[in-house]
Amino acid sequence: MSDFREQALRYHAEPRPGKISIEISKPAETVTDLALAYSPGVAEPVREIAADADNVYKYTAKGNLVAVISNGTAILGLGNLGHLASKPVMEGKALLFKRFANLDSIDIEVSHRTTEEFITTVANIADTFGGINLEDIKAPECFEIEKELIKRCNIPVFHDDQHGTAIVTAAGMLNALEVQGKEIGQAIIVCMGAGAAAIACMELLIKCGAMREHIYMLDTKGVIHTRRNDLNQYKQLFANNTDKRTLEDALTGADVFVGVSGPDVLPPEALTLMAPNPIIFACSNPDPEIKPALAHAVREDLIMATGRSDYPNQVNNVLCFPFIFRGALDVRASVINDAMKLAAVEAIRAIAKEPVPQAVLDAAKVDKLAFGKSYIIPKPMDARLLPRVARAVAEAAVASGVARIAMPDRYFQD
Amino acid sequence: MSDFREQALRYHAEPRPGKISIEISKPAETVTDLALAYSPGVAEPVREIAADADNVYKYTAKGNLVAVISNGTAILGLGNLGHLASKPVMEGKALLFKRFANLDSIDIEVSHRTTEEFITTVANIADTFGGINLEDIKAPECFEIEKELIKRCNIPVFHDDQHGTAIVTAAGMLNALEVQGKEIGQAIIVCMGAGAAAIACMELLIKCGAMREHIYMLDTKGVIHTRRNDLNQYKQLFANNTDKRTLEDALTGADVFVGVSGPDVLPPEALTLMAPNPIIFACSNPDPEIKPALAHAVREDLIMATGRSDYPNQVNNVLCFPFIFRGALDVRASVINDAMKLAAVEAIRAIAKEPVPQAVLDAAKVDKLAFGKSYIIPKPMDARLLPRVARAVAEAAVASGVARIAMPDRYFQD
Repeated sequence: MSDFREQALRYHAEPRPGKISIEISKPAETVTDLALAYSPGVAEPVREIAADADNVYKYTAKGNLVAVISNGTAILGLGNLGHLASKPVMEGKALLFKRFANLDSIDIEVSHRTTEEFITTVANIADTFGGINLEDIKAPECFEIEKELIKRCNIPVFHDDQHGTAIVTAAGMLNALEVQGKEIGQAIIVCMGAGAAAIACMELLIKCGAMREHIYMLDTKGVIHTRRNDLNQYKQLFANNTDKRTLEDALTGADVFVGVSGPDVLPPEALTLMAPNPIIFACSNPDPEIKPALAHAVREDLIMATGRSDYPNQVNNVLCFPFIFRGALDVRASVINDAMKLAAVEAIRAIAKEPVPQAVLDAAKVDKLAFGKSYIIPKPMDARLLPRVARAVAEAAVASGVARIAMPDRYFQD
Repeated sequence: MSDFREQALRYHAEPRPGKISIEISKPAETVTDLALAYSPGVAEPVREIAADADNVYKYTAKGNLVAVISNGTAILGLGNLGHLASKPVMEGKALLFKRFANLDSIDIEVSHRTTEEFITTVANIADTFGGINLEDIKAPECFEIEKELIKRCNIPVFHDDQHGTAIVTAAGMLNALEVQGKEIGQAIIVCMGAGAAAIACMELLIKCGAMREHIYMLDTKGVIHTRRNDLNQYKQLFANNTDKRTLEDALTGADVFVGVSGPDVLPPEALTLMAPNPIIFACSNPDPEIKPALAHAVREDLIMATGRSDYPNQVNNVLCFPFIFRGALDVRASVINDAMKLAAVEAIRAIAKEPVPQAVLDAAKVDKLAFGKSYIIPKPMDARLLPRVARAVAEAAVASGVARIAMPDRYFQD
């Protein structure tokens, strides 16, 4: 057993299994404490909530509580291993919500027969929570699940594998284009992969100004084009009216490669086909579509990002999901809409262009970080993300009319 | 607004809403910590669980996690106020699980159209947890719900309003009978109320030796007898072949009155009809079926118990549910069966007969407690309950073949 493997298993098992616990947040020692917490005192908030449902936010933990929900059909890069096997990932996500945004978060693993049954199960427990983060649910079911749950729930429902990935990718991409002196409206984009994350990334880039007809999306059968008749409704939106068929066809003259697929699928020599100053986002994890050293050896003019923390420009969802939920819950948003997603993109982008605090340099173990080819996106340990991204998201929720309460005072205490 | 009401609302609202929080239980500060907790480290426990489902107990919080689940159809004595209004109660129950048995516990409030949909929803999320405590679900649906969930889940499912109440009532009753010099097999028992708690109490007393034909159960229409044709299948089991029709008829010559009904339904003068040395359990909360002072004024020879902490002999579910789950989860029992329930009854009984630790006297603010008419059942703050009841339950699980692992070492460290 490798050292890291052993260490990871020990971390999860000892001194007690798991990574989160549930604790009492009010005095609960004396008979008097318990008379307030339970019988007979608890009858008072019950009556208040029965009289006005909004009081549930005043007297219970709901407003700060995010459920991380999965059926385990697409766990990390490991595939469909079942809902039970997804539990360590979902607990891990709950841990990240707490660590980065002080949100209380609990994992829920769902077994089900049909997609409809999954949707009904989640909708039926939704009122327990302030928000729902869907995770590791395979495409194309994830699209219907998210759409239907957004419709049925009056709390934010967010599939992080789609939108978290898309927001962080868009933030990094817009900055990379700026560094390379390219306009997103002119950029030719190759997207390797046609799953949930790939589709969400491309849809968000289009909302940021990319042209749909400039996008060449590839699945396992090659370029997705208008003459294919094996496309589901989600891939069909990216069917390009083109003669390009292979990855090499698509890369010829392209400005951008986005990989949301698998390890080592991008041959180094293919990079020579791309336009000057290309951008490579090789986000497959843990092994990217091309190793940075190989890519840099072929093209000195490129910008390279991966999903890994040990290379520059890490595209990591943790730059987004804790803060987008923090902002959404702080103004009790009913949904996480496009305005909020785009606000998150801009807030993340902006941080990368500003001087980097010493604590971030220390955590990253580097002497210097300056906006440019090797630093297009903030580091996960950057403490500016919480106030800045959450605030931008909350403001966008208010401005777009989906907030149900005003911005909390603490956003105005600087 | 009364002082207590105001205090209870403030307790729930400040400094932050609710009574429980979710916390990180492992190191999660550095980049290295997070690489173990989430990507890439988390893939290791995922693979272990995919290979052997039992590993979920080794690497996640499941084994110490109890869900408190309600649909809000029978909240406390307040009735059907909806699932959202039940949230403070369920959070309170989660708090008690932690406070008394160090179990992590989360509330889940369920909305649903049909009973079947409720059952499916709970069954679909059940694998998330180590056990499920059902709460405040109205009769008769609660019977089918519990039965069906026990069948569908491979973790303990326990409806506390039924069985927690029954276990504590039986423990107190057996001790009261002993003090009064009565045999349970001969005792004539009047049960006022025919809901979930009443039926569960009587069923458990029968398992403890009471004779079904000695029980007179009353609903709002009077004594439940064999010539009534308005009885559901659960009440029918208690249809007595008798000419008694009224409460007074039933009480004549009776040894025991158990009230699981409503305030002040037992007129003091009716007590004169009962046999010598009667036993009155007036468990309606917060207002008992008869006030202790009124009862004692009529009968000096009685033993009286209520659901309130400010009278002697409090019948309180908290004497049972934290510890029965503690014991069940410690040996990974697949169910909470009759053997375990009866073991809990005996363990609770036994503690009341032993010398009382000073800490218990201090918490109860009394100088002395000795087994007898005013002390037939332990106090909720008695720290002996956790090790003793949990151990008895775990041992019974092992002996009855429903435990999936051996008793933990700490049960043998005294």
